[in-house]
Amino acid sequence: MRQTKLFTKTQREAPKDEVSLNAQLLIRAGFVDKLMAGVYTYLPLGLRVLDKIKNIIREEINAVGGQEILMPALNPKENWEKTGRWSGLDVLFRLEGAGGKEYALGASHEEVVTPLVQRFANSYKDLPVAVYQIQDKFRNEPRAKSGLLRGREFSMKDLYSFHANESDLDEYYEKVKAAYLKIYGRCGLGQLTHVVFASGGTFSKYSHEFQTITEYGEDVIFVCAKCGTGVNKEIIDEQKICPECGNEKLEEKKSIEVGNIFKLKTKYSSAFDYKYTDEKGEKQTVTMGCYGIGPSRVLGTIVEVHHDDGGIIWPESVAPFQIHLISLCKDAKNIKQADEIYEALTKSGKEVLYDDRADATAGAKFADSDLIGIPTRIIVSQKTLEKESIEMKKRGEKEIVLLKIKSLKID
Amino acid sequence: MRQTKLFTKTQREAPKDEVSLNAQLLIRAGFVDKLMAGVYTYLPLGLRVLDKIKNIIREEINAVGGQEILMPALNPKENWEKTGRWSGLDVLFRLEGAGGKEYALGASHEEVVTPLVQRFANSYKDLPVAVYQIQDKFRNEPRAKSGLLRGREFSMKDLYSFHANESDLDEYYEKVKAAYLKIYGRCGLGQLTHVVFASGGTFSKYSHEFQTITEYGEDVIFVCAKCGTGVNKEIIDEQKICPECGNEKLEEKKSIEVGNIFKLKTKYSSAFDYKYTDEKGEKQTVTMGCYGIGPSRVLGTIVEVHHDDGGIIWPESVAPFQIHLISLCKDAKNIKQADEIYEALTKSGKEVLYDDRADATAGAKFADSDLIGIPTRIIVSQKTLEKESIEMKKRGEKEIVLLKIKSLKID
Repeated sequence: MRQTKLFTKTQREAPKDEVSLNAQLLIRAGFVDKLMAGVYTYLPLGLRVLDKIKNIIREEINAVGGQEILMPALNPKENWEKTGRWSGLDVLFRLEGAGGKEYALGASHEEVVTPLVQRFANSYKDLPVAVYQIQDKFRNEPRAKSGLLRGREFSMKDLYSFHANESDLDEYYEKVKAAYLKIYGRCGLGQLTHVVFASGGTFSKYSHEFQTITEYGEDVIFVCAKCGTGVNKEIIDEQKICPECGNEKLEEKKSIEVGNIFKLKTKYSSAFDYKYTDEKGEKQTVTMGCYGIGPSRVLGTIVEVHHDDGGIIWPESVAPFQIHLISLCKDAKNIKQADEIYEALTKSGKEVLYDDRADATAGAKFADSDLIGIPTRIIVSQKTLEKESIEMKKRGEKEIVLLKIKSLKID
Repeated sequence: MRQTKLFTKTQREAPKDEVSLNAQLLIRAGFVDKLMAGVYTYLPLGLRVLDKIKNIIREEINAVGGQEILMPALNPKENWEKTGRWSGLDVLFRLEGAGGKEYALGASHEEVVTPLVQRFANSYKDLPVAVYQIQDKFRNEPRAKSGLLRGREFSMKDLYSFHANESDLDEYYEKVKAAYLKIYGRCGLGQLTHVVFASGGTFSKYSHEFQTITEYGEDVIFVCAKCGTGVNKEIIDEQKICPECGNEKLEEKKSIEVGNIFKLKTKYSSAFDYKYTDEKGEKQTVTMGCYGIGPSRVLGTIVEVHHDDGGIIWPESVAPFQIHLISLCKDAKNIKQADEIYEALTKSGKEVLYDDRADATAGAKFADSDLIGIPTRIIVSQKTLEKESIEMKKRGEKEIVLLKIKSLKID
């Protein structure tokens, strides 16, 4: 894409009310726009990253048998009353429509997915079932100061699994846990992301969170120095050693929760009286699991982790473009050559942002490029063209390499 | 995809409160599930169709320079007050959150996109700008009985263009009109869809709608027998001849509105005091256009238009799968051969739904296949395998062709 066609521009300053690092950088670089606290618009660059994260999640959830659906945000009050969460869930947005009908805005979708799957899967032969969606959630957060990490509206991948018994749930739960670790790995968060034991609610002893260590994190976890397993601060009093390997040395760290998985067991199936018929013809209550990752929160976390003073440093896998081609050419002949390199790179299948601005200085272009954070920077100028070359630099590195245009293999 | 893995099933009956033909068929065939009036879940088959429609729209809007963004559904009250639509728009959902903050749920996004583009495009050099999103809209419809044609929550592609003057708007408007006709053509609605003159509101004499003719339509239009241009009933009193060619013979038809385009001119830019600096350094008010297509409404319209007594007949371009492979095999050796055909077809890049159910009769499989409406049906049975063949039939046709497996070119 030509940068002169991109309607957004970089900004020197983020809005004054924006205190989070992720949103400050994303706003300044033109990835998101703040509409109000906890509510952001994804601009062209930001939407490209968000979609890449969503696709990585989609691939890995499909690989563990998840069937993608799309449930509505507008939910009937009755469903939320059945589970006690109409009045029990603080962050639930409630509204009234025509004819006095009351709705909830989905803060989570157990209230929709449970009766949905109940309509189709009623025999042991139909189970297990795993369905998921990638959809926007709404939560009436009293405080929303963490940028993309805690939104009032935010994207979520929510997977729900339905099983004939707990051992089948346990087996699937481990599969999803492994899929989640693959997702964080592919998003550039693998090294810093830990499986963390957390509170399990009424029905399970523990749930598991996936926590990415960063100094700006809102959460506190204790990480086993031996196996890397973590324990959330909220349960550290009852769990003073590593629950995985028994090691007594746990280190306190700040972190961001980038996902959680939860054995719901019969909590929601009981509320909807969801039973299946087993091999003997007897009715049994279905056992459930739920598994959440917020793509927008992952996006925010990547920025919290991968940046320097100049701006964002995107991992290849989720970068808005692979190459930032910067032209410093002034005369028509050189500009034409730069255009040709852009077209050849694009044709060869590369995703290229082409800084073709005539009125920006080299310094401004480099500063913008650092801020935007595309992994590979290619510079074309009269100087390089005289040597039939381009300059190439990786965003996180200092070394600049002079490469023959021929060697780019774009002919 | 193996049909035994698909968690949905076809149903004999649609819910009794579902009176619209599109939703009746889509529910019975397992494409959507009705959560409440005007609010549907997209099941795996339905989501595949919806995503294909969205991608066709995306390609054609990108081709006319639209830059994709994603705006929030949760909108601040202040923006809607500025345009007078907080109290002026009947179907606006309003809600209250933490700290008494009031929100609208986006029924349309002029109130968000205008100040957004205003933050970036302030000079004549920055214009024109065209941005769009594909996102869910919310409308508090008093009646929602038309299935996917009139939802309380529904998907929408909304494009907004910003121009220095009216002639630039006029030119872009015609480009988008042409892009829209391409979209309907690619979605299998080309033949039946007409450009229709409709009321233009305060700022323009006319807007244009795209109306698909069908006997179940909610709208009434008058179509020129000569050039195909239509006039909406709402303005027929002031416009008794074809506004395009002057022909006096206009035929009355029922139709479904599948899109509309509108010259907003300065209606919203004035509300937000959105001005740009022209070549002379003087401030001028920006001129706007808006352009909407609802992918879910297009989906419903396709079903209204393309069906028979047996079920849906999907156009190739938006079908959930290209091939419905039906196995009638009973013994292990034949089942293995059917599996191999499924795998070979899939490997060759075909999208295949494979009816591998062991416990369904041939009659039930054919009835389900007609209901689901995949364009090409391939039958594998002991009988066909003995001839090293498969039977192939197009959904809308009666002829069955016996084809050698070798000739499928899937080896």
